[in-house]
Amino acid sequence: MNANTLAYLESCIKTIPDYPKPGIQFRDITSLVEHPEAFKLTIDLLVEQYRHCKLDKVVGTEARGFIFGAPVAAALGLGFVPARKPGKLPRAVIEERYDLEYGQDCLQIHQDAINPGERVLIIDDLLATGGTVEAAVKLVRRLGGVVDDAAFVISLPALGGDARLTQMGVKVLSMVQFDGE
Amino acid sequence: MNANTLAYLESCIKTIPDYPKPGIQFRDITSLVEHPEAFKLTIDLLVEQYRHCKLDKVVGTEARGFIFGAPVAAALGLGFVPARKPGKLPRAVIEERYDLEYGQDCLQIHQDAINPGERVLIIDDLLATGGTVEAAVKLVRRLGGVVDDAAFVISLPALGGDARLTQMGVKVLSMVQFDGE
Repeated sequence: MNANTLAYLESCIKTIPDYPKPGIQFRDITSLVEHPEAFKLTIDLLVEQYRHCKLDKVVGTEARGFIFGAPVAAALGLGFVPARKPGKLPRAVIEERYDLEYGQDCLQIHQDAINPGERVLIIDDLLATGGTVEAAVKLVRRLGGVVDDAAFVISLPALGGDARLTQMGVKVLSMVQFDGE
Repeated sequence: MNANTLAYLESCIKTIPDYPKPGIQFRDITSLVEHPEAFKLTIDLLVEQYRHCKLDKVVGTEARGFIFGAPVAAALGLGFVPARKPGKLPRAVIEERYDLEYGQDCLQIHQDAINPGERVLIIDDLLATGGTVEAAVKLVRRLGGVVDDAAFVISLPALGGDARLTQMGVKVLSMVQFDGE
């Protein structure tokens, strides 16, 4: 990906200091997706990256992961599987509990969302400690799916998510990296 | 839209009886979006419908509205604005409270998400009583945006959402209609 393009995308991401709690620098992708050119460019770059990969489905994590995962799935002609917080999916689910940057949470997917052997790309807006995505990877693998790749608009390498996913055998793509928190 | 195509999309939508509470027939769009052909077809039909309209942004309502709204926005080269539940958006917001099919809720958008005069298409998965979308329309209009159209994968005409939005001067498009609840 072109450095100027990525610098442009970075310039579209607003930073909110001390949100949602003191000490956290919140990187806000809504300022990017509200921008027509920046949003289209982000999706086009992700689509280009995975156009020649053998994939069946995209899993997007609630809720900002839907904003990037669904367009990539539709453009690539793949199924889209929402990974959601408890109580949001209406049919039989499996779940994984996990620690996140500030708190603890749980992620669920429908039991019939992934068929054994299906190849799955995981997409979220931001990779921090990697807890959410690790849970998503585990859910897909429990259903027999194959996860080789995860893509993010933003990553915060200092928080260790890249290393955590690499240890699980997942290749990480992130478009914009921010230092520190 | 072709009747056979719409019948096919309808066949991809699972119905869960008595969810989230007794008496509600829950129409589940995750079974549609997990299906590669059905999801792509749904997005393509929405894109075709609005390709020649003068639009600036799509507002999608949390969280299933993101799954359809974001792909349509990206494909049409429009900005995508998430309308979210309280506490989810990190910058200054405006909000509207509303009644929904089962309970009460509140929707927020960022104060700077819509510029005066911008033309906005609202997208959600399902139109029931129309409370959520009415709130979204009001939010956009309070910021000076123009809302002429709202699109849904599913509508439940018996619940009155179509009529409610028409009274607000909003044209409603829905792809699949279910009778009763």
